[in-house]
Amino acid sequence: MQQLTIVKIGGKIVEDPELLAAFLKDFTLIAGNKILVHGGGHSATVLAGKLGIKAKMEEGRRITDSEMLKVVTMVYAGLINKNIVAQLQKLRMDAVGLTGADMNLILSEKRPVKEIDYGFVGDIRNINASALLELLKQNYLPVIAPLTHDGNGNLLNTNADTIAAETAKVLAFDRNVRLIYCFEKRGVLMNEADEESLIPLLDLKSFQQYKNEGIIQGGMIPKLDNAFRAIASGVKEVIITGASDVNTGKGTFIR
Amino acid sequence: MQQLTIVKIGGKIVEDPELLAAFLKDFTLIAGNKILVHGGGHSATVLAGKLGIKAKMEEGRRITDSEMLKVVTMVYAGLINKNIVAQLQKLRMDAVGLTGADMNLILSEKRPVKEIDYGFVGDIRNINASALLELLKQNYLPVIAPLTHDGNGNLLNTNADTIAAETAKVLAFDRNVRLIYCFEKRGVLMNEADEESLIPLLDLKSFQQYKNEGIIQGGMIPKLDNAFRAIASGVKEVIITGASDVNTGKGTFIR
Repeated sequence: MQQLTIVKIGGKIVEDPELLAAFLKDFTLIAGNKILVHGGGHSATVLAGKLGIKAKMEEGRRITDSEMLKVVTMVYAGLINKNIVAQLQKLRMDAVGLTGADMNLILSEKRPVKEIDYGFVGDIRNINASALLELLKQNYLPVIAPLTHDGNGNLLNTNADTIAAETAKVLAFDRNVRLIYCFEKRGVLMNEADEESLIPLLDLKSFQQYKNEGIIQGGMIPKLDNAFRAIASGVKEVIITGASDVNTGKGTFIR
Repeated sequence: MQQLTIVKIGGKIVEDPELLAAFLKDFTLIAGNKILVHGGGHSATVLAGKLGIKAKMEEGRRITDSEMLKVVTMVYAGLINKNIVAQLQKLRMDAVGLTGADMNLILSEKRPVKEIDYGFVGDIRNINASALLELLKQNYLPVIAPLTHDGNGNLLNTNADTIAAETAKVLAFDRNVRLIYCFEKRGVLMNEADEESLIPLLDLKSFQQYKNEGIIQGGMIPKLDNAFRAIASGVKEVIITGASDVNTGKGTFIR
């Protein structure tokens, strides 16, 4: 099977033109087919603030009301996505920027209201693997913004980490998929304050042990749960690393 | 040769959810392959105003400085484009929203500074016909936002009428292309105040005559110049009509 690398980048890198340019240069050097999934970061909150729209949070999670949905559609699908595409075209990579509505790529369902009403947030129901495979066959580089649609005319805000993991899982039937999460740290650390304390390799057993010992905690746990679920679904390798290490072979490898 | 219909819609229809929904329903009923090109309208100016960015005009034409470029990228490529795509998906048309940067679809050149510096405005240099034909072959419906790129990492604001005309011209080699401009009036009128005074058919000779008589004047002249250039380049038919007449066979036919 052919190799496919799916890379997810977060908000901080996306918002810094110099960091982004350096990252994209490294990213284009990865051999073979690639898909880039980007987050949104703080630009949406900043724009909302300028427009007098208050970012609503509930237990640390963003609530997407209809005004905020307009803002994230403008920032994620417009400003961020198209600037990444234009930068990749400059680097002679034939990028195409997409949301889940384009080509019916990612169908989702508005999250049901339980304790919290998240608003226009979508949980993924289906990923159109054949459309993505056809784009890759034609050597396009899909750049996916964290928005999906419900098939009923509504765009929905959807977590970029989850889009990357679900895309990796569904393409693992046809490709040897490597999923790389780029974030602020150099990988999963034994001690969050010490960038040198990188855990180079994690399997499910060592993950459980580090969890029990309290070494791995907080927001890293759902990230790693996602990673191990991807591995269980046939993804060959998940790497958690820093954006500047996207093509150096450094970071935490999960198998 | 297969039939292809390229429709351009302007700002007013794009900004009114009810008008847009009615238009898209009619539009989907047009048989055969279709491409939709949309303008931006006033939403960009409104957003710029809210953000304290002043819309700069010079002889009635918008000047696109770097702040305004960000605004139009958000509004055209994000909000407007993706909402149209989601609406079309609801109508079971497999739409894909694109700017000229995506798939290297429309390469342009920053307009040279002469008397006026238009800022980040692009004049079209090349349209990627083969990418569009491949999308049409796969039954996708391209929805094109009025932004292009210069191949050097920069997005450029580009007139939607011109994108529609140039796309029609380049695809006329492979398809029987019909180009429909939807605007506020029902077509070209003998008397602008009288919607009943529609000119049903225009050829180059009658156009010249109406121009000499002062019946056709103002902004309609460059629109019709564009239309006749498209005809001269092999486009089968150009229709100028109202959005509600996109599929009724009414309007001004140019051959």
